[in-house]
Amino acid sequence: MTTYKIMLLPGDGIGPEIMAQVRRVMTWVEGTYGVSFDITEGLIGGCSYDAYGDPFTDEALATAKASDAIVMGCVGGPKWDGKTAYDKRPEAGLLKLRKQLDLFANLRPAMCFDALADASSLKREFVAGLDILFVRELAGGVYFGEPRGIEDLPGGGRVGINTQRYEDWEIIRISRVAFEMARKRGSRVHSAEKANVMEAGLLWREEVTKLHAAEYSDVKLEHILADNCAMQLVKAPKQFDVILTDNLFGDILSDAAAMLTGSLGMLPSASLGDGGPGLYEPVHGSAPDIAGKGIANPIAAILSFAMALRYSLDMGDAADKIETAVSATLEAGLRTGDLMSAGMTEVGTIGMGDGILNAL
Amino acid sequence: MTTYKIMLLPGDGIGPEIMAQVRRVMTWVEGTYGVSFDITEGLIGGCSYDAYGDPFTDEALATAKASDAIVMGCVGGPKWDGKTAYDKRPEAGLLKLRKQLDLFANLRPAMCFDALADASSLKREFVAGLDILFVRELAGGVYFGEPRGIEDLPGGGRVGINTQRYEDWEIIRISRVAFEMARKRGSRVHSAEKANVMEAGLLWREEVTKLHAAEYSDVKLEHILADNCAMQLVKAPKQFDVILTDNLFGDILSDAAAMLTGSLGMLPSASLGDGGPGLYEPVHGSAPDIAGKGIANPIAAILSFAMALRYSLDMGDAADKIETAVSATLEAGLRTGDLMSAGMTEVGTIGMGDGILNAL
Ligand SMILES: CC(C)[C@H](C(=O)O)[C@@H](O)C(=O)O
Ligand SMILES: CC(C)[C@H](C(=O)O)[C@@H](O)C(=O)O
Repeated sequence: MTTYKIMLLPGDGIGPEIMAQVRRVMTWVEGTYGVSFDITEGLIGGCSYDAYGDPFTDEALATAKASDAIVMGCVGGPKWDGKTAYDKRPEAGLLKLRKQLDLFANLRPAMCFDALADASSLKREFVAGLDILFVRELAGGVYFGEPRGIEDLPGGGRVGINTQRYEDWEIIRISRVAFEMARKRGSRVHSAEKANVMEAGLLWREEVTKLHAAEYSDVKLEHILADNCAMQLVKAPKQFDVILTDNLFGDILSDAAAMLTGSLGMLPSASLGDGGPGLYEPVHGSAPDIAGKGIANPIAAILSFAMALRYSLDMGDAADKIETAVSATLEAGLRTGDLMSAGMTEVGTIGMGDGILNAL
Repeated sequence: MTTYKIMLLPGDGIGPEIMAQVRRVMTWVEGTYGVSFDITEGLIGGCSYDAYGDPFTDEALATAKASDAIVMGCVGGPKWDGKTAYDKRPEAGLLKLRKQLDLFANLRPAMCFDALADASSLKREFVAGLDILFVRELAGGVYFGEPRGIEDLPGGGRVGINTQRYEDWEIIRISRVAFEMARKRGSRVHSAEKANVMEAGLLWREEVTKLHAAEYSDVKLEHILADNCAMQLVKAPKQFDVILTDNLFGDILSDAAAMLTGSLGMLPSASLGDGGPGLYEPVHGSAPDIAGKGIANPIAAILSFAMALRYSLDMGDAADKIETAVSATLEAGLRTGDLMSAGMTEVGTIGMGDGILNAL
């Protein structure tokens, strides 16, 4: 029997509740596919800081490195905001994990589930059928560039500094992922930057252009300024197939796109390196306001696990089944509070888990 | 008779067409209020590069500095994209103007004109009555930070670098503008950054908090992460009153918000320094695809001139009248192509100018 090592990192806020439902789905996969998951649970974020004074310990990192896949909840919350040293904040734990495993390719599908198209603030015709894949660079850019910090100025006062920094090979490897993904989808890539204002964006544009010409000229490539991309996402989101971005623009643009779908609580992500384990986490945050109430939507976490099956464990068929079960559960009218609308059946976190397990 | 020195910078693309309609409104102000505008027309952007090999000459800058207000169209286009040296691109002219006049406060109203609420991709109830004011820092941050550039790496390959850099006084002066504006409006400020990832954002948050506590505790202040701000703008844009941002986040978030309104061709902006002339320009770009066709919407440019009357020329009453005339023209059913919908009367650039002049 094949055994996969899974590291489970529930994190803060609603993380533990939604991860409990992921565990149920994992058990279903074990029973159905005759595989076994060797699960190690670990701490990340504020809970790890509370336990160890460190948002992600080196021991946890070692376990992560030795796993086949890492399935995470979410980190952070007002309990820690501004109340720890900067390098000990919950997010620093997540950034350490991403960087140390060199998880440079963050795949974020922004898709609108048909049953939920009316939950969007956008008119149905703008979002029904929406299916964008963000390919966001995740191990570089201003998130990690040096020099950085807050310094006292000689004449008094302070300055805050961060550095946007991309080397050509970093741009090339993430662009390659975008082009490869596009070939399996609509064969179109929009690459978003601010080449008109930032040289780092200009290098980005040049390197994407070169790689495209050399190896991917069958894919349709368009360069788009990040501000215009934000506009176009609002105006006509269905024009996009794959959107390629750096770390910071990807953070903002993919969140805007996620909300367009009306399905924020539904959206998973995968963060992949070059070989080695992938990290799978929902796009949504830790939602401290509803934590512990049993009402959080577990679907994004469950779909993130489905991405783990697809990208790290070579079990695409199981992933398909889970995605189909999620759709069926929604079609049957089950809704957590975040998705609730007239005529539907409101359920809690466990109730949604029940629905999906029943559909499986 | 009071004479005001106005520098007119039509720029590229649709700039000259829309600016011609602004001139008509200027003539109306002269006739109605007994003032006189001493207008100097200049070049900025690609057209200036074509004429002088420089997207904004020192002579033009000197004229700008000596004016009471600068009224601009828009810059850039595919004719120059990637075809000039980087420091000679059209945008560099605009950035030089902003920086040399220290125009640090970019005011960008994102408001939804009631007659146009149905032009939005969002459902009417999400945008009708929307009225957000972005206060964007415009003279600092990653747009201007050093070091910057593209460099060859010792071992081969290239690196692109930009620097996000804010000193405390830069943050304080723009925050002050946001709080002052909020007092005249809904008394609420959201300050958007990525304090969870960037120290420059952390300093931003700390300085905004300090100023608020010391001088503006009557205004309601909330800190919001830029990615969450992008989400919330899509989910429930009417929750916002004033949004305070740095240069780069402001660029992206204000463009997304502008598009939410369905009125992108309608939105003006003002860029103010500490005394000295202000710069007034539409939020939209140079729209090269429709340039020269006589169909561009001149309203954003006309409303930008109204902002000039209000903020630089102390003629708030004339500004009110122009804004009212624009509303009336829309209520009467006149629409340029970008705003066209069933049952309305489609007009070109001049036709829209006629409509507004008639209403005045
Ligand atoms: C939690 C935070 C550090 C993170 C980011 O900014 O990347 C989050 O917003 C995300 O997009 O995964
Ligand atoms: C033209 C460009 C340099 C500019 C910017 O990025 O600031 C524009 O997008 C704007 O927002 O005024």
